[in-house]
Amino acid sequence: MSHASSPSGRLLKAPENFLSPDGVRAVFDEAKQGRRDFVRQAFAAALAGGGAAAAAAQAASDGDANILTLPEHSTGLGQPVAAEGYGKPSKYEANVQRRPSPGLTQTTQASVSFAPLQSLFGIVTPSGLHFERHHQGWWDIDPSKHRLMVNGSDASLLKKPLVFTMDELMRLPSVSRFHFIECGANTGMEWGNVAVPTCQYTHGMLSCSEFTGVPLRVLFDLAGVDYKRARYVLAEGADGSSMTRTVPMELVESGEVLVAYGQNGEMLRPEQGYPLRLVVPGVQGVSWVKYLRRLEVGDQPYATKDEAVHYIDLMPGGLHRQYSSTQECKSVVTTPSGGQVLLDKGYYQISGLAWSGRGKVKRVDVTTDGGRNWRTARLQDPVMSKCLTRFTLDWQWDGKPAIVQSRAMDETGYVQPTTRQLRAVRGTRSIYHNNAIQSWLVEESGEVRNVQLS
Amino acid sequence: MSHASSPSGRLLKAPENFLSPDGVRAVFDEAKQGRRDFVRQAFAAALAGGGAAAAAAQAASDGDANILTLPEHSTGLGQPVAAEGYGKPSKYEANVQRRPSPGLTQTTQASVSFAPLQSLFGIVTPSGLHFERHHQGWWDIDPSKHRLMVNGSDASLLKKPLVFTMDELMRLPSVSRFHFIECGANTGMEWGNVAVPTCQYTHGMLSCSEFTGVPLRVLFDLAGVDYKRARYVLAEGADGSSMTRTVPMELVESGEVLVAYGQNGEMLRPEQGYPLRLVVPGVQGVSWVKYLRRLEVGDQPYATKDEAVHYIDLMPGGLHRQYSSTQECKSVVTTPSGGQVLLDKGYYQISGLAWSGRGKVKRVDVTTDGGRNWRTARLQDPVMSKCLTRFTLDWQWDGKPAIVQSRAMDETGYVQPTTRQLRAVRGTRSIYHNNAIQSWLVEESGEVRNVQLS
Repeated sequence: MSHASSPSGRLLKAPENFLSPDGVRAVFDEAKQGRRDFVRQAFAAALAGGGAAAAAAQAASDGDANILTLPEHSTGLGQPVAAEGYGKPSKYEANVQRRPSPGLTQTTQASVSFAPLQSLFGIVTPSGLHFERHHQGWWDIDPSKHRLMVNGSDASLLKKPLVFTMDELMRLPSVSRFHFIECGANTGMEWGNVAVPTCQYTHGMLSCSEFTGVPLRVLFDLAGVDYKRARYVLAEGADGSSMTRTVPMELVESGEVLVAYGQNGEMLRPEQGYPLRLVVPGVQGVSWVKYLRRLEVGDQPYATKDEAVHYIDLMPGGLHRQYSSTQECKSVVTTPSGGQVLLDKGYYQISGLAWSGRGKVKRVDVTTDGGRNWRTARLQDPVMSKCLTRFTLDWQWDGKPAIVQSRAMDETGYVQPTTRQLRAVRGTRSIYHNNAIQSWLVEESGEVRNVQLS
Repeated sequence: MSHASSPSGRLLKAPENFLSPDGVRAVFDEAKQGRRDFVRQAFAAALAGGGAAAAAAQAASDGDANILTLPEHSTGLGQPVAAEGYGKPSKYEANVQRRPSPGLTQTTQASVSFAPLQSLFGIVTPSGLHFERHHQGWWDIDPSKHRLMVNGSDASLLKKPLVFTMDELMRLPSVSRFHFIECGANTGMEWGNVAVPTCQYTHGMLSCSEFTGVPLRVLFDLAGVDYKRARYVLAEGADGSSMTRTVPMELVESGEVLVAYGQNGEMLRPEQGYPLRLVVPGVQGVSWVKYLRRLEVGDQPYATKDEAVHYIDLMPGGLHRQYSSTQECKSVVTTPSGGQVLLDKGYYQISGLAWSGRGKVKRVDVTTDGGRNWRTARLQDPVMSKCLTRFTLDWQWDGKPAIVQSRAMDETGYVQPTTRQLRAVRGTRSIYHNNAIQSWLVEESGEVRNVQLS
């Protein structure tokens, strides 16, 4: 995958001192050839004692327009402020996009588009780059017509069924919290020996946002749910996929499950279930039901098609595991990662993401020699529960082949397993819930590729 | 300002029990009139025992297609996943936009576009809605041609001047941190007796993002800056406004000042200085120089036009105050706020934002009776230094006129002043650095408007 036009996907040469005697000559030579348009002005400014005005004066006085002409953006009038506008990324970032995997699914409506993790910083995923997973395509539903119903599988499980408009929901007490969402099938291809090329395709069914909504417990309290008997919740979406999932009531009682309408400060995006989705922190994305229209309380799990046929873990010996929906502790190095190129030896900042469906990330260790030696990475603040955590580590690359891996540990003490350890327990027939350590090989050429260490 | 099509700008009627005997009749009556398209299906589903399939079966069996036809989004095939796409908000959110104030400035290139704070949740501002303030318009600069120079006003102030490409900068150690940015002129109109109608126009030159970049100290260490003598930094932008600002070296030494390329996970937006801007946490936005091309260290403040003529505080008695760039502790209630309408008595969640340029917000008190009684609001996690903090408070509106205000206190013990207190010290001739308590009047009609309490 090429990232030629954006700096965020590349790793290039180390800084040079352009202002040494040799550097001066090089800069002028290159400027004359038009290769370093800015440096010629910056350099002229330095000669003149600093400042754009000085550079312009110098340009005017020595007449060498070829070297000292200021660029248009330093002399012209730019674009006006937005008149009722919604901003977009730079045209130079057009290669930083969600991308589908052609052939992965039979239709583009029941499919996936992966987030470009290798080009992202920090922990927030821009909503325009949030991964997509649809079961029957996405819709832009009129919020004034959308309703949410709360009912019981048996009338005795709650005092009164309720139906809410969006306006009614948005008047209720709300909270905002940062959480990751990961598809249960993320990194699914790696169960076999398929090493897909980039971390966009290995780990890109992962995103992180600040979600805003009403704790589901508030709605259930209004409806008078009998928490002693109603131990399960069925969540139902309004799209044509008839998506239904069972959520254990203890997650609702903890206050963590939200009926969410906000994401990263604004209303949910249509691809993410506008105007309403369930947020089930730590649990696989399929349970975060989009276009949420109904919540039913019941006294047993519902065994719906998307938890009895799909989203199950095939185990050794022909058994399968159901309702294994918590996303266990996991991490991935995003820089350097598959498809990137290290153009020179020297300093690099290794950077990546760690997360756990069971709470906070406690520690991340990183190796550059395939696991013989590990160093503990820095965790960037804030470290939040069931949220992405950004880690970094300083690295001097000696130009020799290197295998880069990260291994996360969460606050429960659980340690992310190797592929070998995971397969020993889970076998090789699964699609879902692969949280194994990811390996990136840095070749002598600087090219980085996905390798599977058995 | 009307927000008719989006739920995020409105406050409407309280929940009703649609499933009481009277409710049943009302729902059917309204459904027949086509006013509650979803409820008729949800209600039918409840009658049938739950589920869309049940509703559809019911629709087929009783033949009353007028009431029980499922909407297209519950039966049809939706939109496909993005094929190399960048997502956009729902069409129903088209009214949630940045907005300029016609007539406020002579040209639209040296102007402002305000963020719609009244429609935002949590603390992250979507980059597409981040406020804009340009001095000579915005540009989309080619990052492969952009350079950053580090030099000294005197050659003895550092060991070697440096010029960095974007690729070189992005290999250096970086950090990601959440910070607010506020224009020094935010809430400037309120210095006089001009009560602009909405919090978009009173406080909308305020946004908050996760910024990613290289601590400026790293670049200065590479250049061998003499920190004992070089106590000031001049930051210079590459756009035609010749924007230059002095930054005290102690802010750089603290590690807080960043040479930033990332914002909310992706590269900076063009309106925000792509590909490079200075991030000076806690300091007014004008110092966060966009299109950053040069940093010069010096032994005295530079007194540039944008700190000697503009961005000064006119004080009583004809004096003026310079270099008062820290944004003091401030807050604003965003719900309810000017332009919104409360359509009924009863429960509301008062919600707003608090921030301080000197550290963390420690407490926010809220009054609904113009300051006679105050209650302490809940602060939502995470509470971060020099970052927006979201506060909320439960409120039962009795339908009588109410004056809603918030008063923030930061970790230094500083308390946000009233307008009267601020004017006693600062007089009435200022434009900049108004951090007074904001007052919203809720009228008996439910309409909310900006009022100034002397």
